Amino acid sequence: MNIRFFNARILTMEEEKDIFEGELWVKNERILFTGDKNDLEGYYKKNEESCIIWDQEIDCKGNLLMPGFKNAHTHSGMTVLRSFADDMPLQNWLFEQVFPVEGKLTAEDVYHLTQLAILEYLTSGMTAIFDMYLSPFRIADACIDLGMRCVQVGSINRFGPTMDVIEKEFLELNNYGPLSSYILGFHAEYTCEKELLERMSELSHKYKAPVFTHNSETKKEVEECIERYGCTPTKLMDSLGLFDFGGGGYHCVHMTDEDLQIFKDRNLYVVTNPGSNTKLASGIAPITEMLERAIPIAIGTDGPASNNCLDMFREMFLVTGLAKLREEDASVVSADKVLKMATVNGAHAMGLHESDVLAEGKLADLIMIDLNQPNMQPIHNIVKNIVYSGSKQNVKLTMIHGKILYQEGTFYLSKTPEEIYREADNIIKRVCSV
Amino acid sequence: MNIRFFNARILTMEEEKDIFEGELWVKNERILFTGDKNDLEGYYKKNEESCIIWDQEIDCKGNLLMPGFKNAHTHSGMTVLRSFADDMPLQNWLFEQVFPVEGKLTAEDVYHLTQLAILEYLTSGMTAIFDMYLSPFRIADACIDLGMRCVQVGSINRFGPTMDVIEKEFLELNNYGPLSSYILGFHAEYTCEKELLERMSELSHKYKAPVFTHNSETKKEVEECIERYGCTPTKLMDSLGLFDFGGGGYHCVHMTDEDLQIFKDRNLYVVTNPGSNTKLASGIAPITEMLERAIPIAIGTDGPASNNCLDMFREMFLVTGLAKLREEDASVVSADKVLKMATVNGAHAMGLHESDVLAEGKLADLIMIDLNQPNMQPIHNIVKNIVYSGSKQNVKLTMIHGKILYQEGTFYLSKTPEEIYREADNIIKRVCSV
Repeated sequence: MNIRFFNARILTMEEEKDIFEGELWVKNERILFTGDKNDLEGYYKKNEESCIIWDQEIDCKGNLLMPGFKNAHTHSGMTVLRSFADDMPLQNWLFEQVFPVEGKLTAEDVYHLTQLAILEYLTSGMTAIFDMYLSPFRIADACIDLGMRCVQVGSINRFGPTMDVIEKEFLELNNYGPLSSYILGFHAEYTCEKELLERMSELSHKYKAPVFTHNSETKKEVEECIERYGCTPTKLMDSLGLFDFGGGGYHCVHMTDEDLQIFKDRNLYVVTNPGSNTKLASGIAPITEMLERAIPIAIGTDGPASNNCLDMFREMFLVTGLAKLREEDASVVSADKVLKMATVNGAHAMGLHESDVLAEGKLADLIMIDLNQPNMQPIHNIVKNIVYSGSKQNVKLTMIHGKILYQEGTFYLSKTPEEIYREADNIIKRVCSV
Repeated sequence: MNIRFFNARILTMEEEKDIFEGELWVKNERILFTGDKNDLEGYYKKNEESCIIWDQEIDCKGNLLMPGFKNAHTHSGMTVLRSFADDMPLQNWLFEQVFPVEGKLTAEDVYHLTQLAILEYLTSGMTAIFDMYLSPFRIADACIDLGMRCVQVGSINRFGPTMDVIEKEFLELNNYGPLSSYILGFHAEYTCEKELLERMSELSHKYKAPVFTHNSETKKEVEECIERYGCTPTKLMDSLGLFDFGGGGYHCVHMTDEDLQIFKDRNLYVVTNPGSNTKLASGIAPITEMLERAIPIAIGTDGPASNNCLDMFREMFLVTGLAKLREEDASVVSADKVLKMATVNGAHAMGLHESDVLAEGKLADLIMIDLNQPNMQPIHNIVKNIVYSGSKQNVKLTMIHGKILYQEGTFYLSKTPEEIYREADNIIKRVCSV
């Protein structure tokens, strides 16, 4: 499919490049051209004989094209538990509510529950997810069948799976079509014996591959690790060689100076999850200290059972808002930095170097933001408008891998939302009944 | 107009009443009937001969009807400054950025800028606002012309207006048609001389009328009041008799035990503004302590220059989320309590006792929430879904005073959004240029 977007404002998210008015052309899964009037003239001169036949021409009416948001930490299948158990501390919630229900889920269940989450990702302009959950092959299928880009991360813990399975997932899900990739990982220090962590480190060394995990989400988690090993989770993991090839941590709320220094030295990604950390009362991550050290930060929603919203607009406001509260300083963490976290940094954390910005040759993972909604008016500063006033209602279009999957409130998928809701309801009736 | 909503889930927000499936009928500006199948049979038996001719019958398709949200603190006209100056401490922001621009605004400007805010209120399901700004008569006109219900509050301060003007506003804007009402108020302790506060107290006593004001928004404000008067703003105001007939405070972030006791004893409303307090780094209000004392709490967005979003969904999440963070306890401030703050309590704080719940004879100020969006699935608990996962995208319909003003993304107003945007742009070009 060749799709021409014209009459657009374009925010490429390339360094030092301002928003301009122009066009963006998509040829199959890639961006063929993006530029303003002058660039366009240049293109035509250079490609005199080229004649593109458009399958679709979209008048953007001055609305904004930008890279899609990257949800850099989630557990999609946990849609099953949204609003099922709330208002509880993390550890009780996890062990008393989440694990018993999850114990009943089949791989087929995860397939359908993941698709329910994907619908919401699309409404929030998310073009890729960094997903950690059970049954990775069926998660990949669920994403591919709907057209969602999915980077999965291993979730090994003391209950499973085996390291052989993780290695198989790593090898096969990185060769499972253009929408699927896989990064090594484990659930968390507090759910893994040390031997398991050592074996994960060996696997990382074997493939020179980065490793991601939940890290220092709660005070309790850090304290218990110190009791067990005499050091923080970050220090323990680093000492085991888990970060020798990079990677990063989800949450990273309770970090010591030394922890942050390790992140800096190893160039590890912090994936911050302010919605979940707020709802579960886990705390406020030290975003300003991370920025001061130039630690790369990406943003994730966490799963729909702990947030409960899969909404990058909420997360962006919280990243800067909670930092302002924490530092008692309204000037910290600018909107520009937050928008970069939600897009470019997320892509890089997830290894999606072809989906990070809007430029020729990059994958067409993009969204259109409706500036003609009252919450985007007046247009003093579009980036501030998006970060401070934006909402899902502003997502006019979500395109992944060159395909329009969501436009003007309608999904263009292989299934209807109603079919997906029905499947989810059937599962919920079975697994959530007492 | 007679409008019949059928096939609805209905959340009346009456005490102890669960969500039920049924119908809601609107006759002109009031609710004629609401009930389930049995109530309906009862109604038909009792009113055998009644035959209603419907102007419109709306199939709700299982979606939720509930009372509209009440935005219990805002400065609508400040749309002019959205994303104009951000990331600054409150006092600098106010004195260096806000006041100079506001100095240039005419009453006509405020009319148009208020209408811009109203568009956003409607998209967020707000059916009434508690507005404090310049040029109250033109604010009332702006609201009436679009159909928005508006309770205004006096904003007297050392720069104006005079007490005579306030009294005139009080008398006339309470007799300015069914959509307009007015409550006594002043801007804040730090912008009023003591003598002005004394005269406001006299006016309150003359009419036995409640008084609202900004109160204890920042630490600085409280400290400076203590320096000036040897006591907190709440204690000072109370000692001047300002709360002898009730009223309340906007923000109320930095409150002592004694302040809270005064609020409890006088039955004063706290109007909490978590979005603004977050963005301006003002702090987290002690919501749990207020709830323990049974102090009534309502929710406001504050103005679009300080929030910057006019979105009750964001505010609701923040009310409970920030309380959880503050208390380090994920179980505090349940979704039910928050939804009551955003609807019933707001109405009562604003004196809108006919717009609080969905019941026969009440004014038809209601909204329809789209439960068929992915963020509202599965339906374990609708109230939790609204508070934790809801977004503007879920507002299917906003009705005020029996009129549908917004439905399925389209406005039904005396003006188009484009006309309002254009007016706002012209004003901004004039007043925001350097």
